[in-house]
Amino acid sequence: MVNYPNGKKNTFHTAAASQADRGMALEKDINATNEYYLSIDRAVIHKKPTPVTIVKVDYPRRSAAKITEAYFKLPSTTDYNGIYRGKYIDFEAKECAQKTSFPLKSIHEHQIKHLSSVLNHGAIAFLIIRFTKLGETYLADAEETIRYINTCDRQSIPYEWFTEHAHLIPYNYVRPVDYLQVVDRLYFKENQ
Amino acid sequence: MVNYPNGKKNTFHTAAASQADRGMALEKDINATNEYYLSIDRAVIHKKPTPVTIVKVDYPRRSAAKITEAYFKLPSTTDYNGIYRGKYIDFEAKECAQKTSFPLKSIHEHQIKHLSSVLNHGAIAFLIIRFTKLGETYLADAEETIRYINTCDRQSIPYEWFTEHAHLIPYNYVRPVDYLQVVDRLYFKENQ
Repeated sequence: MVNYPNGKKNTFHTAAASQADRGMALEKDINATNEYYLSIDRAVIHKKPTPVTIVKVDYPRRSAAKITEAYFKLPSTTDYNGIYRGKYIDFEAKECAQKTSFPLKSIHEHQIKHLSSVLNHGAIAFLIIRFTKLGETYLADAEETIRYINTCDRQSIPYEWFTEHAHLIPYNYVRPVDYLQVVDRLYFKENQ
Repeated sequence: MVNYPNGKKNTFHTAAASQADRGMALEKDINATNEYYLSIDRAVIHKKPTPVTIVKVDYPRRSAAKITEAYFKLPSTTDYNGIYRGKYIDFEAKECAQKTSFPLKSIHEHQIKHLSSVLNHGAIAFLIIRFTKLGETYLADAEETIRYINTCDRQSIPYEWFTEHAHLIPYNYVRPVDYLQVVDRLYFKENQ
């Protein structure tokens, strides 16, 4: 549960805690990073809105439609995509509360399918995984991760796999998750 | 207002008619086309979910979160993006009920800004405009359209501009808006 500086809890968080909290801090950090990238025209990468099925809308005034019944929908794609250096970029981001491994059930089957799909079409695709208790955020290439998932029987990816095969994402104040630094090195073969 | 075959009106349509109906038929056609493209692995292009600000969520059971208060948010990007032939694709789609011109107020300022932005980064970007009363759907290159908008003082783009500078999108049953046929010709210089 997230406590806000003013001591109040956000309604959304309070109500739908176990589902909605997961990954909120990482999401905030990635959004801030993307805003920074956009502000200096380095990349155009956005988070997709949370998919909801809208059932009822009150329409008291022309200017103010109020949705009064809606439900969360399973996403059919990853959360983030956009363009960087002329390439289509696609990734999913997940927080992991465990210290020793990342449980595969946090990624939906159709998200893996989506990542395979965009890879086939020439995308740069990856996962951003934050081990919250360790304070470490990794970029794992989607192709390599999917290969690992398909060849192992495990229900999770051990932490050691990330330290060996994934790439620690540097942090700084204006770019809390500076993943394009890793993307440059990994997909554009730049030394920094 | 859309009337469904069973004589019932969809709650969402009934309630939020003027805002929500606009573009629904075109959206449905583009979604069907995108699903077809995806099914034959020709392209991975999705509509982004409608952005909403969630204010209240009821959480009676672990499995069923119900959103009880939410509001429509202005989109900060276009509705559609994805990857085709290794290129990042980005477009906005709008229905137009007028016969003689397309009113520019249907496209938000920040959507034009977003299109300029992705163009700068090497995207294939365009608008899909359907003149509903004429039954014609056009693909207009984003760069050309933005140039026209910036050089004219008008509040709308005349229909003749589309017949001269945009490209009629062919229709068929499985691909109701077969825009990739135009994309191939226009951006990949293919004769079909």
